[in-house]
Amino acid sequence: MRVAAFIVASVIAAQPLDLRSSVTTWVDAHQKPVLQELLQLLAIPNVAADRPNIRRNAEKLQQMLAARGFKAELLETDGNPLVYGDLNVPGASRTLLLYCHYDGQPVQPTAWKQPSPFTPVLRRGRLADHADFVDPASVDRVQPDWRIYARSASDDKAPIVAILAAIDALKSAGHAPTSNVRIVLDGEEEASSPSLPSAIQRYRDKFRADLMVIFDGPEHSSGRPTIAFGARGMVTADLTVFGPMSGVHSGNYGNWIPNPAQRLATLLASMKDENGHVLVAGFYDGIAPFTDDEKAMLDAVPDDNDRMLQAFGVAAPEQAFPRLQYALQFPTLNVRGLVSAYVGDGARTIIPDRATAALDLRLVKETPPEDVLRKLRDHIEKQGFHLVDGEPDAATRAKYSRIASLVPNGLSFRAFRTPASDPQAHALVAAVTAVYGAPPVQLRTLGGTVPIDPFIDALGFPAVLVPIVNFDNNQHDENENLRLGTFFDGIVTVAAILRM
Amino acid sequence: MRVAAFIVASVIAAQPLDLRSSVTTWVDAHQKPVLQELLQLLAIPNVAADRPNIRRNAEKLQQMLAARGFKAELLETDGNPLVYGDLNVPGASRTLLLYCHYDGQPVQPTAWKQPSPFTPVLRRGRLADHADFVDPASVDRVQPDWRIYARSASDDKAPIVAILAAIDALKSAGHAPTSNVRIVLDGEEEASSPSLPSAIQRYRDKFRADLMVIFDGPEHSSGRPTIAFGARGMVTADLTVFGPMSGVHSGNYGNWIPNPAQRLATLLASMKDENGHVLVAGFYDGIAPFTDDEKAMLDAVPDDNDRMLQAFGVAAPEQAFPRLQYALQFPTLNVRGLVSAYVGDGARTIIPDRATAALDLRLVKETPPEDVLRKLRDHIEKQGFHLVDGEPDAATRAKYSRIASLVPNGLSFRAFRTPASDPQAHALVAAVTAVYGAPPVQLRTLGGTVPIDPFIDALGFPAVLVPIVNFDNNQHDENENLRLGTFFDGIVTVAAILRM
Repeated sequence: MRVAAFIVASVIAAQPLDLRSSVTTWVDAHQKPVLQELLQLLAIPNVAADRPNIRRNAEKLQQMLAARGFKAELLETDGNPLVYGDLNVPGASRTLLLYCHYDGQPVQPTAWKQPSPFTPVLRRGRLADHADFVDPASVDRVQPDWRIYARSASDDKAPIVAILAAIDALKSAGHAPTSNVRIVLDGEEEASSPSLPSAIQRYRDKFRADLMVIFDGPEHSSGRPTIAFGARGMVTADLTVFGPMSGVHSGNYGNWIPNPAQRLATLLASMKDENGHVLVAGFYDGIAPFTDDEKAMLDAVPDDNDRMLQAFGVAAPEQAFPRLQYALQFPTLNVRGLVSAYVGDGARTIIPDRATAALDLRLVKETPPEDVLRKLRDHIEKQGFHLVDGEPDAATRAKYSRIASLVPNGLSFRAFRTPASDPQAHALVAAVTAVYGAPPVQLRTLGGTVPIDPFIDALGFPAVLVPIVNFDNNQHDENENLRLGTFFDGIVTVAAILRM
Repeated sequence: MRVAAFIVASVIAAQPLDLRSSVTTWVDAHQKPVLQELLQLLAIPNVAADRPNIRRNAEKLQQMLAARGFKAELLETDGNPLVYGDLNVPGASRTLLLYCHYDGQPVQPTAWKQPSPFTPVLRRGRLADHADFVDPASVDRVQPDWRIYARSASDDKAPIVAILAAIDALKSAGHAPTSNVRIVLDGEEEASSPSLPSAIQRYRDKFRADLMVIFDGPEHSSGRPTIAFGARGMVTADLTVFGPMSGVHSGNYGNWIPNPAQRLATLLASMKDENGHVLVAGFYDGIAPFTDDEKAMLDAVPDDNDRMLQAFGVAAPEQAFPRLQYALQFPTLNVRGLVSAYVGDGARTIIPDRATAALDLRLVKETPPEDVLRKLRDHIEKQGFHLVDGEPDAATRAKYSRIASLVPNGLSFRAFRTPASDPQAHALVAAVTAVYGAPPVQLRTLGGTVPIDPFIDALGFPAVLVPIVNFDNNQHDENENLRLGTFFDGIVTVAAILRM
């Protein structure tokens, strides 16, 4: 039997919505202890570099898992520990590996509109709407639009607490998960998980599963439950074109000494056409035309393109990729920053000594980082540039009239993409569809990047992303927040997955 | 009789070199008082914004002029006073207007390798060669390679002192100038002379002359006496391409939301070809092919192109303008700075909200600023951009998919160019040629800019530049300096001009 590429409303099995109502009822009755557990966890600072507090987080999480019957332990790594839990369900024929991270982005405390990013506060709405504070101890029930403001409120502590609350809710209704559940909580995700690849090798057996479920990122902007079958990868690099050894007077030498900012502009222009189509040879190689199923999946995403464009103040998208979901299926070449000499008050009338473009390239499954970088280097050389590592020396300067460097920075991550037809992924989507009585938003590829390719590499299982926090959570920025109605719905989504 | 376009060695009249030897002898005997006068002048801070010290400079200069028999006065303006002196010579049939400026560039005192930029120091050579200090009071004679380090040592107080020393030297030999001499000392040149145009109108009659001689800028790098018949003008502007209202996530929206840094690169690339030839329509309009005389003049400049390229660490010049003197005869379009979002440690994976290129355009006589800016705006519009003043509003953002601004900043100055065949300019070159027994380096156009077009506009006389300080004087930068051998030779050059 052909497995449908993705689930549409017409094929939903008529399943009872008992699970939804029983979990919702439990959550309504247990708002206070659930929020209490989240607030306590958010009060422990969790920047990856803060080793003592990271360990306090890890120990607290180990206790929280153990309290739910997980065999819980800390897996030591070359960096911060992984928190690991194993919950065996007698008779289960499937094992799920749930992934979250317990570290958060660095903070700039003075930019937060509260005493500290690690003193979570409850507001009767959005900070942007000037919502008041409420003392969580003084309220028995919160409203769906109320929000908690704290670092990692959404990214990524809320999903951890949602998983545990879902287990509690199921237990209260006399249910256990229908799959064995393994959970791994990363303590370095916001620092690019440097210790993860070796740790996966070391503890390989603990991560074996039939499906990996990543709880991270914001749900679709429509506010509907969301499943993503993949995420783009990324590689970043600085492209520098070298000019004279130091800036020279633009009057005394203008027209004669070549200008590296102009040459960088010409080089960047050679990489992309006016419509946003990348011109680097082979850049899109291996990406097959979309099948009808794939097109149907992309077309079904309820993006409100016009509303998004209006929100961003942009009249029209790139003409090569007029629809967002299609745009996200291709790799990008993005100039994320430019610098050469000075602009503004410090501007001087010089020919600059160099010009640099900071690039990020988002990748798809067909375009691994090393291939893309090689093609980019080939392109730069084809434009007549001699590529150097570091600074060009005098001999190089005397020999080559066009000199550039392309320096990768940070880690690179490959894309992953689980086929929508994968039986495990399909079962998960079916379970979420059944509990809500409507299919979730199903994304073929998230535009952003999650550093989970080490798992995929080592273990090869299918993986899906289940984002369960509000899309406007200020993730990575100051005043990160969690909308509580979205969080409570997320507990239902997790329960559906545990019962898939 | 046809006046030769410029003077070559073969046409030098066999004139006695008496003037040179008598001035040189006087300078040798009066090194100490000449340097003393320069050091005292350099000790008075002279940043244009420092009004009390500017006035101290002006009053001191008025006294110095009066001591040489000038009818000296301060001409009040809307800003800093002009110092003016008038020396009538009975029977003279020519009036020269000598121009220098007494203000200097702003200073960053901590970057100077001496207690203060306004505490001049004497070194036995170049700071770059770690030359020692010498107490000027302890030496009776200095060596030609010794240097004074102080703000305005070269730019532009040394020429003022050289003019007065030349008058003293002539007087000592029983000579007066052969022309009436008017001198005007600008107190705001480094601040773009904002009060000069109205002051010229106001004191118009005081500036009437047959030839204006501008003593400013460095002599040719060959170290030979130098005359320039003109200078390029300049206009500066910031070109901004607007993107989304604020930076957006390069993963979530990459390929879909257009990138303003990429579009700025494409726009800049459309303005100039790979050889450095500007593609803006009409950019070079009005510039006639060089005559044989003009070519001979350009070819006679003893530029050591290879040595300059090597010093700058550049393998080859722009292919459109392979020889420096020819390059300087054309207008430029120079990217003096670029900025968009962040590069380096602060880099974020975003599509930036905007990208800006700071441009300076050097101009020639045929390309006035307003024309060039209009052509540049036309070019930007032809590339599909809607030009705005300031920030685009929501309605503009909704209507136009490509939005940019071109904002001129600072003052613009037109180029000037006195024909090499001008009789007054020719007489000046002949006088300098006679005193040295060889023609000076004759530049058709200096690449840089001097703000003297208000004089040319109001009074229309021919003007030439006579730079008499060392080319490596660190002008405008910290540790500005004056090579004393060059300065003493400059006194000879001025004497030749006063006796032309």
